[in-house]
This record gives sequence, structure tokens and C-alpha cells, in this order.
Amino acid sequence: MGQQVFQHTLSNGLVLLAERMEHVRSAAINFLVPAGCANDPDGQFGVGSVLADLITRGAGDRDSRELSLALDGLGVDRDESVGVYNMRFWGSTLARNVPAALTIYADVLRRPHLPADELEPVQSLAVQDIEALEDAPQAKVMLELRKRYYPPPLNKDRRGTIEDVEALTIGAVKVHHARLFRPNGTILSVAGNVEWERLKAQVEELFGDWKPGADPDLAPTERTPESGHIPKETAQTHIAIAYPSVPVTHPDYYAARAADGVLSGGMSARLFTEVREKRGLCYSVGVRHETFKDRGTIIGYAGTGADRAQQTLDVTMAELRKLKDGVSDDEILRVKAGLKSSLIMQEESTSSRAGSIASDWYHLGRVRSFDEVQAAIDGLTAGMVVDHLARFPVRGTTLVTIGPAPLTMPE
Amino acid sequence: MGQQVFQHTLSNGLVLLAERMEHVRSAAINFLVPAGCANDPDGQFGVGSVLADLITRGAGDRDSRELSLALDGLGVDRDESVGVYNMRFWGSTLARNVPAALTIYADVLRRPHLPADELEPVQSLAVQDIEALEDAPQAKVMLELRKRYYPPPLNKDRRGTIEDVEALTIGAVKVHHARLFRPNGTILSVAGNVEWERLKAQVEELFGDWKPGADPDLAPTERTPESGHIPKETAQTHIAIAYPSVPVTHPDYYAARAADGVLSGGMSARLFTEVREKRGLCYSVGVRHETFKDRGTIIGYAGTGADRAQQTLDVTMAELRKLKDGVSDDEILRVKAGLKSSLIMQEESTSSRAGSIASDWYHLGRVRSFDEVQAAIDGLTAGMVVDHLARFPVRGTTLVTIGPAPLTMPE
Repeated sequence: MGQQVFQHTLSNGLVLLAERMEHVRSAAINFLVPAGCANDPDGQFGVGSVLADLITRGAGDRDSRELSLALDGLGVDRDESVGVYNMRFWGSTLARNVPAALTIYADVLRRPHLPADELEPVQSLAVQDIEALEDAPQAKVMLELRKRYYPPPLNKDRRGTIEDVEALTIGAVKVHHARLFRPNGTILSVAGNVEWERLKAQVEELFGDWKPGADPDLAPTERTPESGHIPKETAQTHIAIAYPSVPVTHPDYYAARAADGVLSGGMSARLFTEVREKRGLCYSVGVRHETFKDRGTIIGYAGTGADRAQQTLDVTMAELRKLKDGVSDDEILRVKAGLKSSLIMQEESTSSRAGSIASDWYHLGRVRSFDEVQAAIDGLTAGMVVDHLARFPVRGTTLVTIGPAPLTMPE
Repeated sequence: MGQQVFQHTLSNGLVLLAERMEHVRSAAINFLVPAGCANDPDGQFGVGSVLADLITRGAGDRDSRELSLALDGLGVDRDESVGVYNMRFWGSTLARNVPAALTIYADVLRRPHLPADELEPVQSLAVQDIEALEDAPQAKVMLELRKRYYPPPLNKDRRGTIEDVEALTIGAVKVHHARLFRPNGTILSVAGNVEWERLKAQVEELFGDWKPGADPDLAPTERTPESGHIPKETAQTHIAIAYPSVPVTHPDYYAARAADGVLSGGMSARLFTEVREKRGLCYSVGVRHETFKDRGTIIGYAGTGADRAQQTLDVTMAELRKLKDGVSDDEILRVKAGLKSSLIMQEESTSSRAGSIASDWYHLGRVRSFDEVQAAIDGLTAGMVVDHLARFPVRGTTLVTIGPAPLTMPE
């Protein structure tokens, strides 16, 4: 059962990717449009999120209700979300409904009505989304970490600010759409039981005459990350940390992933063993790797009672720093087993595959084959992880906390 | 591609189920053990959760660390959770690793060490799990709703109470295991690329000599549900409601599912349209059907700013009550498309299938075929939904809220 991946670039720059999976009946559709919140202008923070909600409220020949009914009638499970660089439109349905769904998505992306009379309920929802963060300290601490760790515009939050969202006009939302929605930089990926030639022809028909637009300059500025504490009478202290790693484009990428596997991948991983199992400090502790094209970051979180918070941070940082002193062959074997097992799970899911091929193309300009990823995992050694950590040690860690009292980063 | 489901009951009562999925490389293992929190004795609320954590800390020939390493080395992604009637042990890995994983699970279920020196960290984690609810008002309001709506012992929460968890002894945990872990009432389901005869032989070998135990009496008592308000200075008011429906064993079951589909299934569903789209009252609003063997319930949740909370409840209740006045054919078509689409997604996932066949056996004593479920969905009509609502109207709704001020259930 060989992997069947297809790619085609339209003359206007839109990239179409497909992975044919013959033994499934479902298919997943995934659009990445270069309209993430990094593009939200000053004074309009949150405009991307408002656009992402308003954009499905009528498009082409259908009003808001007809559009929802049409997608629901095709059994499309869908979601629109705003990332830093991209806005994502995701839908999952039966493979035979893909052509009809794509026709609707072409209207949504290219011919949305953006109705003035629906702006107010959309603004109201967007404001509530910001207010709801006060009841979700774990989500809030991660947002506050990103705000302080990343340089602008990478540090913007999709939710924006209450002030900016309330001040938005329908004109501003329409300008935002016209400026950013364009075929160049847009990636459409489809995974499932689809026919490539027919899909390609339909996408040419739906998107071939879409006019390219200018790419805005989103080069990150220079900035020094800042730690911080947000005082709040929460039951737990919510701890978030970040420090630099390598991006997915870097030769050290798999070694970096293995390093966080040793720390957090599986129940026998070091952080779980030391923080959770042995000391009972908290259930939720872990680190994960996050990548942009030009930079990678290790992001960590732990939530624990205020009386144990400093100890939790101390033990966590000690484990992170100790990693460079050595990793055992057993640990690497375990990490490889986990990575391979999750690779195979992903191979079997149309949603995972549609997401992966789009993400690969976005970051690398190509799709990694299973064989390539498998070979990279197979080739991992304890030495590679230690060498990587010698080049990219844990340093300059940014710490952000929400809770009754601030913590001290251990020396 | 016909569906291949196998079943075998061991002489001690353990039920083995398997679904063979030839085109995948993964497999999922799912044990339901009749040791849910309904069994937690007075004065020991939370003992089931403590047992579920402690039970993987060494079993058979392996100590805690060796056991974690062994499962991680097989690439098993796993989770242990405590429900009302059952404790669930779930693991997902490569099909070829299933025999090795089952050998380990047989040790975990039958020969856990339950080490005294690990009780304290486990208690500490369990206490934190309870404390963490204070920072998660959405989770807390659902727990408080269940506590007030269901009769004992269905209304117990797996987390238990801080007082009881702190007072637990290792002796009590061992007694709890010895009393409840037994083959009769246990269901093991496996889905993926597995060979039935070999699987059956291995399960006979691993579990055939397990001695049956007594089934405790868990018959629910009589009780009248009570509404309530928990005052808290949250940013949002968290609203939870419940009222009786039919269980999965009832002839009206699919009509009941279609009724909540009309309300909450898809973006054009009534609650989303009226509460979210038109009025912008809140993002998260919805109802879902929850079933035990003997009773079904509609559970609803909405979270919104305090100034909009009463209006949100009023609009939601009006929509729920209006449903009996009629459902359009278009709405039923849309609901059928959504149900069929999600049925097909489930067919393609080993984890979903392992969960579904075990749940079917637990509730119905048999596994529903895709054809049966598909025929039931195809057979749905608007008339069936309205007839169902005439027999089971919205009444006696229990309302529980967390927020700055209580709400009034509309007449």
C-alpha cells in the first residue's frame, strides 16, 4: 500500500495537495489562507477572528442560513480557526461530497457577503471569547507567555482586545478580507478517497481565475523576551515557560523532538516520573515543541497548588537542564517506539493527513513521505540528542505565572 | 468490505469482542471493568480514582518503572479513567504489539502491586484534581449538575472528596481492588488488524483462570432532582441543565438523538442559530444525549457573561420546548447527513470502534452492525421526532449555575 501524494500549483500561486487513501470512505479538506492574526493592524487586533466568524455568514448565492444548511446537508464537520500566520478552514465529510463542499468553500473564501447586520453579534461573541479567558487560567497563561516571549507580530493573540473588537466597522473587516485573501500563499489539501485528476480540474475551475495579491511584510522585529507574573486568586498556580529550540527546517529537528520525547513522551518520561509519579506535585506537566518557519521553541506548562508551585518549577527546570548530561539508549528506544506508533495512527486518519501535508508544504515547501519520517526516527541515537543539547542548551528561559504569588526561576 | 465482528464469552464471564479492520496497521484495546465510582463506599469517595492511578505502578514481575517502560517501549498510547459504572483501560498501538500489551494488562488488572510507598503521591495528585476544579468552572458546573440530578449512586463523582481521599489507607485500596476486579462484568474489546483465533486463545490463557466475584447491588435509589446555584465571582455564568430522555435500549432512542441533532448537531442547528448566530449570546451552547442502561438524559451547557446569562437561559429553554411543535423535513435530512457522516468517520478509527463495540455490549448485550445503525438513521422522519417529544416532553428541568448571581428558570 504505497503512499500516493499529488501536488499542483495553479498559475496564480495556489497550491493544491492531495493524498489518496483508498480504503476509507471519508475525506478531509484543509485550507491554509495567509491571513493569520500576525496581519491584524494596530487598532484592529481581533479583526481576523471577527472575519473568520463573519465569512461563513453568507457567500456566493447563499445567505447565512442557506450556507450553514448546505454544509450541514453534506454532513460536513467543520471548523474555522485563526493562527499566527494562517487562517485555517477545515472540513471532514464523505469523499463523495468533496466536490460539492469545495464549491461552497470557493464562495466562502472568494465571495463572502460579510453582512453588516451580523457584525454586532459576531463582535459580541468575540468579546465574550476574551472575557471567558478569565475563567480559563491555563489558556490565559499560555497566551500571556506567547505575548512576552515572541517578538511582534508573532506574539499577537487571535482574540485581539475588547477595545479594538468593539471599535471594528464592517468596512474594516471587508478591507481586511480584500487585502489578505489571495491565491498566492494559500494551500488547499485534501486527504481521503479522492480522484486526483478530477480534483485538480475542479480546483482549477473554482480558483484558477482568482487574482494574486501582495504579500505583506511580516518579518518579526527584534525583542528580548520578558518574564512576568499575573496575580490572581486562583486555586492553582499556572506556570508557563519557553526557550529557543530549532525549527522543523533545521537538521537538528528530529533530535529536538526526541529530546522532548525523553522529557514528556509517554508515562515513563522524565517529567512525568519526577514531577507526577514520585512527588505527586501535579497531574499536568509537560513540554512540547512548537515551530514557525524560522524558529522553534520549547513550550512548557504545569498547574499545581500554590504551596507546591515553586518546588514544581524547581524540579521541572532541573530535569530540563540535566538532559544535556546524557540520555540512555533505553530512553531513545522508547521515544522511537512512541514516535513511530503515533506516525502510524496519523497515517490512518484523513484529518491528520490533510493537516500534515499542508503543514509540511507550508514549512518545507514539500511533503515528507512516511519513509522519510520513519527513516529519520529510526536513525535517532542518544548521542544525537546530547549533541543537539550541547548546541541548543536550555537557556534564557522565559517564565510566566498566574496565581496568588510569583515564583523564582532557579539559578 | 464487510464488517467482521467476533465475540466470545469465557466460562468465568469475561466478554471478549474484536473487530477486524484489515486495512490498518494500528489496533486499540479497551477494557471495561465493573469498578466505576458508583462502587466507592461511604467514607471512601475517590478510592476508585486512587486505585486507577496506583494500579499501573507495578504489576506481575514488573515494578512501577519497568511497567511504564514496557508499555512505552511498545508505543502504547494509554489512558485509565473512572466512569460511573466502569473503570476503563484504553491503549492504542501497532497491531503487532497487541499480544505483548495484553500480557501486561493482564498483570495490571489481576496482579497489581499497589505499593504502599506510592500511595501518598497518588493521594496528593487526587486532592489536586479536586482543587483544580475551582479554576475550571465549566467542568465544575457539570459535576454539580450530576450530583443534584441523578440519584445515588449515579450521582457520585470519580474525584471523590478531599477528606475521604486523604484518609484512605493502602489496605482500603487493596480491598477495593479485590472486591471489584473480576471477570464477570468485564468486557475486553480490540479493534484493528488482529487475528481472531490467536487473540481468543491468548485471552483464554491470560484470563481463563480468573475467579468470578460477587456483583454488588448498585440499584439507584429514588430521589427528586434539585436545582441549585453556586455563587462565585467568575467572569462568565456557567449554566447546566438536565431533563429525562430515553436510554439507548429504548425504541425511541434514534428519535431522541435526532431531536438533539435538530437542536445542536451542526452549525445550522436551532440552538447555534438562535443563541449564537442571531443574538451573539455565547459561543458554547449545546445539548447532548447521555445514556445509562436504564435511563437517558439530555444534558445542556452554556457559558456567557453575567449580563446575558438570563437571556441565554430563556432563549435556550424556549428552543427546547418549541421542538415538540414541529420539525421540518429539511432539518431531518440535515441531521441524517450529520449522523451518517460521523458514523463513517467512526468506522475508520480503531479507537472509536474498540470503544463502540464495548459500549454496545455493555448497554445492549450485543454489537450493533453498521447496517443496523445506518438503517435506523435512514428510517428517521420528522414525525418520529415529534411523536417522541409528545411522549417525552421537556419537563422537570434541573438547573445548576455557577456565577455571580442565580438565574430563574423561565415558566
